[in-house]
Amino acid sequence: MSYNSFGHLFRVMTWGESHGPAIGCVIDGCPSRIALKATDIQSDLDKRRPGTSRFTTQRQEPDQVRILSGVFQDDTMKQQLTTGTPISLIIDNVDQRSKDYSEIRETYRPGHADFTYDKKYGIRDYRGGGRSSARETAMRVAAGAVAKKIVAGLNVRGALVQIGDMKIDRSRWDWKEVDQNPFFCPDPVMAENWENYLDRIRKSGSSIGAIIEIIAENVPVGIGAPVYAKLDQELASALMSINAVKGVEIGRGLDAASLSGEENADQIRMGADGEPIFLSNNAGGILGGISSGQSIVANLALKPTSSIRLPGRSLDIEGNEVEVVTTGRHDPCVGIRAVPIAEAMLAIVLLDHVLRDRGQNALPRKAGTRPM
Amino acid sequence: MSYNSFGHLFRVMTWGESHGPAIGCVIDGCPSRIALKATDIQSDLDKRRPGTSRFTTQRQEPDQVRILSGVFQDDTMKQQLTTGTPISLIIDNVDQRSKDYSEIRETYRPGHADFTYDKKYGIRDYRGGGRSSARETAMRVAAGAVAKKIVAGLNVRGALVQIGDMKIDRSRWDWKEVDQNPFFCPDPVMAENWENYLDRIRKSGSSIGAIIEIIAENVPVGIGAPVYAKLDQELASALMSINAVKGVEIGRGLDAASLSGEENADQIRMGADGEPIFLSNNAGGILGGISSGQSIVANLALKPTSSIRLPGRSLDIEGNEVEVVTTGRHDPCVGIRAVPIAEAMLAIVLLDHVLRDRGQNALPRKAGTRPM
Amino acid sequence: MSYNSFGHLFRVMTWGESHGPAIGCVIDGCPSRIALKATDIQSDLDKRRPGTSRFTTQRQEPDQVRILSGVFQDDTMKQQLTTGTPISLIIDNVDQRSKDYSEIRETYRPGHADFTYDKKYGIRDYRGGGRSSARETAMRVAAGAVAKKIVAGLNVRGALVQIGDMKIDRSRWDWKEVDQNPFFCPDPVMAENWENYLDRIRKSGSSIGAIIEIIAENVPVGIGAPVYAKLDQELASALMSINAVKGVEIGRGLDAASLSGEENADQIRMGADGEPIFLSNNAGGILGGISSGQSIVANLALKPTSSIRLPGRSLDIEGNEVEVVTTGRHDPCVGIRAVPIAEAMLAIVLLDHVLRDRGQNALPRKAGTRPM
Amino acid sequence: MSYNSFGHLFRVMTWGESHGPAIGCVIDGCPSRIALKATDIQSDLDKRRPGTSRFTTQRQEPDQVRILSGVFQDDTMKQQLTTGTPISLIIDNVDQRSKDYSEIRETYRPGHADFTYDKKYGIRDYRGGGRSSARETAMRVAAGAVAKKIVAGLNVRGALVQIGDMKIDRSRWDWKEVDQNPFFCPDPVMAENWENYLDRIRKSGSSIGAIIEIIAENVPVGIGAPVYAKLDQELASALMSINAVKGVEIGRGLDAASLSGEENADQIRMGADGEPIFLSNNAGGILGGISSGQSIVANLALKPTSSIRLPGRSLDIEGNEVEVVTTGRHDPCVGIRAVPIAEAMLAIVLLDHVLRDRGQNALPRKAGTRPM
Repeated sequence: MSYNSFGHLFRVMTWGESHGPAIGCVIDGCPSRIALKATDIQSDLDKRRPGTSRFTTQRQEPDQVRILSGVFQDDTMKQQLTTGTPISLIIDNVDQRSKDYSEIRETYRPGHADFTYDKKYGIRDYRGGGRSSARETAMRVAAGAVAKKIVAGLNVRGALVQIGDMKIDRSRWDWKEVDQNPFFCPDPVMAENWENYLDRIRKSGSSIGAIIEIIAENVPVGIGAPVYAKLDQELASALMSINAVKGVEIGRGLDAASLSGEENADQIRMGADGEPIFLSNNAGGILGGISSGQSIVANLALKPTSSIRLPGRSLDIEGNEVEVVTTGRHDPCVGIRAVPIAEAMLAIVLLDHVLRDRGQNALPRKAGTRPM
Repeated sequence: MSYNSFGHLFRVMTWGESHGPAIGCVIDGCPSRIALKATDIQSDLDKRRPGTSRFTTQRQEPDQVRILSGVFQDDTMKQQLTTGTPISLIIDNVDQRSKDYSEIRETYRPGHADFTYDKKYGIRDYRGGGRSSARETAMRVAAGAVAKKIVAGLNVRGALVQIGDMKIDRSRWDWKEVDQNPFFCPDPVMAENWENYLDRIRKSGSSIGAIIEIIAENVPVGIGAPVYAKLDQELASALMSINAVKGVEIGRGLDAASLSGEENADQIRMGADGEPIFLSNNAGGILGGISSGQSIVANLALKPTSSIRLPGRSLDIEGNEVEVVTTGRHDPCVGIRAVPIAEAMLAIVLLDHVLRDRGQNALPRKAGTRPM
Repeated sequence: MSYNSFGHLFRVMTWGESHGPAIGCVIDGCPSRIALKATDIQSDLDKRRPGTSRFTTQRQEPDQVRILSGVFQDDTMKQQLTTGTPISLIIDNVDQRSKDYSEIRETYRPGHADFTYDKKYGIRDYRGGGRSSARETAMRVAAGAVAKKIVAGLNVRGALVQIGDMKIDRSRWDWKEVDQNPFFCPDPVMAENWENYLDRIRKSGSSIGAIIEIIAENVPVGIGAPVYAKLDQELASALMSINAVKGVEIGRGLDAASLSGEENADQIRMGADGEPIFLSNNAGGILGGISSGQSIVANLALKPTSSIRLPGRSLDIEGNEVEVVTTGRHDPCVGIRAVPIAEAMLAIVLLDHVLRDRGQNALPRKAGTRPM
Repeated sequence: MSYNSFGHLFRVMTWGESHGPAIGCVIDGCPSRIALKATDIQSDLDKRRPGTSRFTTQRQEPDQVRILSGVFQDDTMKQQLTTGTPISLIIDNVDQRSKDYSEIRETYRPGHADFTYDKKYGIRDYRGGGRSSARETAMRVAAGAVAKKIVAGLNVRGALVQIGDMKIDRSRWDWKEVDQNPFFCPDPVMAENWENYLDRIRKSGSSIGAIIEIIAENVPVGIGAPVYAKLDQELASALMSINAVKGVEIGRGLDAASLSGEENADQIRMGADGEPIFLSNNAGGILGGISSGQSIVANLALKPTSSIRLPGRSLDIEGNEVEVVTTGRHDPCVGIRAVPIAEAMLAIVLLDHVLRDRGQNALPRKAGTRPM
């Protein structure tokens, strides 16, 4: 049991506060002999890094990751490999500007974890939100980058599909567009609309929510497990652990409530290559908690950040009624930078289940799929 | 790590198949000296029991629970108490009619776990869905009934708020109505509409999805924990583990994506009794993964059951294309009986976090809430 | 986390009290498609069963095990197979004679868990020791019997090597003798001596300690893991969890303290078959927490049972000084029946690590043992 | 599940190799508001630090620890306090001299983990033993120093009681002597003898084993738990995880095998202060896996290090027979520096169980110790 770890065979523990000297994570259970160097991780981190556009926080953090353990290379080896021992990753905090936060020491921002941390622990590192800061999520991205290197062929990606009530047009979905705008938006028309929309919100001192869709392709059949290790359950857990997430959907999600049994059940035909073909994917690639071989599809909804420049009614730490304005640097839409975070969580959940499945079932399955 | 357990300090492991001799669970970590007898559990089980109306499966299962361990009473004691050791609960399977299922031995029902179990394990107990049957959830309700006895004052309840696209009118919400109709519906007008609606679906051989809302009142402030033990995360995990659930929302859920920061952040005033008053509850009672003292509110969406009498295209176990019709007894709307199941999961998650919080933080918190 | 479970991928939870209606266990994570029927388990249980000689408790328990879940056979299958879902095992308690224990309700037996259970839980099922009874260990033997069926070629066995200060002569060690006497003694001469010795102890109302040696042959190289999952560590944990065990040794054990580096280090030569040959086995088959391919060898020391007919000074539950005599049926030497228990724990630890190793390392290892 | 973590509510994960840039650990679950600064940890680390006498390795490591997260102090606070979030500790590796180890790249030292790491992972960081190096244990000492600050009154200490076959005279036991010699020896006469003895061994290029005794005083009654969370079991696990440990004893340990029931059972009288007085402590303070309130006493035996300058027969990585001599810097008796390590493990196990007990049982116990 751990408050700051997730995964089972591939297990990640993160540590660090927004304004401490550094943040980091330790990955336990990584298979050995995986080629891994810091630059493999850095490219994913750069996608999440703050300050890359005017639509994210202006905090300047290079987020340079270092690998402190768990890899090895000597002059007989062509590349650096994992050794099977814990991989410790660290990122120094650089641009902290702690003075920005001195006034929230005395007050609780509405909608923020300030209040509950103080109630729970009787103490709170208020600088930049301390442990509750989304800065922690950098380490998820780092761990996810490691996870992605392990399962051959697995392809995990995500996109922002809604900001506020402005949804993309799915008929315009183009994965190549995702890297062409500051929103990870697959719809180039909507990306332009969002630009104007977010500029207005940003200048007004407000913030706005968003919805992300993540997809994993080439997922092995048979990973996940009943009953309390369902693949959708563990994915829901991983996604709901991301700061600001308030809703998670697998496949058709909430809409499945409105469907009839015959509309919902994904029918199957046999493909020319002897592999089953599903005629739809309402299940999001998971049946009974186990992967079917279809793409895993999930959506997650993020609330707007509660750190805004507009005044809100709240209490101070003595219980006096006050009005709170947050003047630090914040993302007007935390959903944007959550795209690579959600991808990382999906990759880790899948890898963890691949390893668990190898442990329990790899051999029996190889022995044949019909009873003796 | 376990595929069939959940919870940490209050830990529940379930076992059993739909058509085996019995189902059961073992509760580990229950505090000692809690008054507990089988009838305390039975009343919750009776709410979930099949065959109580024409809108649920006609399988007749009395679901009589027996306590096999973990409690004690001698003639000096006024009541039976828990001893702190594992509580083993068992329910015999009575009405199995296995012959109904003999034909699905050879085929995969579309949208069902038949396919994935076979692919994963290379073997499948196809009778009644085996381990993938919702019959397993009886033990969740049993464990939840134990959990409810432990945290004084905590009040957990739920209601069905949508079947298909027919939503209740929240202005008519009346908790007393929930026990007056076969749907756990808090809106008496909608309950009548659903009756006709479901009769049509049932007779057509189809099925339909639904949405449940669950609420916990009098939740202690400060339970839950960052970062990977967030209360909303573990609740999402627990709810997504329920058969057929495809979406989970905490507080405003998906709608939070459409809100601005000032709309979403629940503002706070000071009550006459010195306790904070929140002016709204968009957060669903959880901030930063920790309970704020407001009611916990969550929604879960269930897909329609995939076991229907209407034909669907699929494969048999040899890979031949077939048409499948399911003739066994099934719920036309599995969402109905999931109401007590969701309540149970919520109760267990909350209790588990109450115990975890006692372990780590009970003493420091008592020592005062401000830094030394 | 669980107080009543052990193992990780192959995970066993036990439940039940000495004088409750039944005892049982649930095995989670068992690979699918393993041939398993109740009689496979029964033969191991019969070795541990009480009442088979005058040197064990005279309680008469047939210890008939039933499998309630996790296996499947239909008329197309030649044998019953595991399905990969939880295997629930149950044994009814038959010969309870609870009246024997009525007087210890009020007193604490010296050296017994009576005192600590009462202090911890504020309540105690005193009948036959309740949960602290060695009756729980029947389920370890049952789970161990399942574990033994999974790793092909693995051979786990044990023997009693010392009762009181009477040690066997290792030059007379003969595995075939172990089943020929009531002590699991590999030395036929010592077995006769023990018979007389134990008769004296039994008649005097006293009890005596013992030492067991367990060995696993054909252990795969490379199972176990640094740093907190060392094979010797988890074996020490498993053995120390057996009632009455006070000491555990791996390989040379305590004697290793007296050795010099050159005496202790097991030297290696290359065998004609290309497999390494170790010239000694001081390490007990484990180097750095990982199996070397040599036999795993461990010793465990058990204290004498504290339930004796000779009077001992103690307190009653009100704190009054009393003299306690235990009149129930007890083993004069609990070490005897602990032999199959220790074997079972060893089998489970090894299997669990085989599965964990498959999960993390099976593939990289196959790819070759030298860096790229 | 994790290969590199231990503890449950107070959970420690370590990382790092002997010759990587740094080693570290993360402590999860530490209660908040504990006064903690780096110097609190440093004093314990200095006890384990290499190079402080000629009887330990001459590697020069200042072992300066830094706290990277989980503590907080601002100018309103008199001292730095824990916040309840993960505490990340790091020590830079300074004196690595990797060239010493270049030749063992090609060979397996007899009795060393070289062989098994290579077989398991297919790769090995051979510099200084990599992850298998006792350097990892510095982080145990660091985590133990944190643990010791939390349970008021608890007193954990240890001593070396045997080197080779030279045992201390217990009648001369004086705790004050432990800090007066380089061996943590409580017997000043034996300390002098060991000095000569170890000088001989050191100069000969050999090494020697040892036995440590650790004791915890003022342990709360009622911590620990049946059946697989026994206090003695978890202590055995923690101690056996220390490099080179081959045997663990609780209380009388192996000698308990030779005792009769009446000799072994610790009898109880009532003290003048209303607290029970045990007339002996054969149980080592633990009955049925739960603390009795007596001192916890355990012994652990360490084998001699396998890194010696005397030649041993072994294989190289190609399978050729070779003779191996280890020329790096090593402890002639690893048992010496293991004293603070064993103390730390004991402190962590006890604290973890104190927190677990608070979670499950603090309230019921307060409600009274007799049935209702």
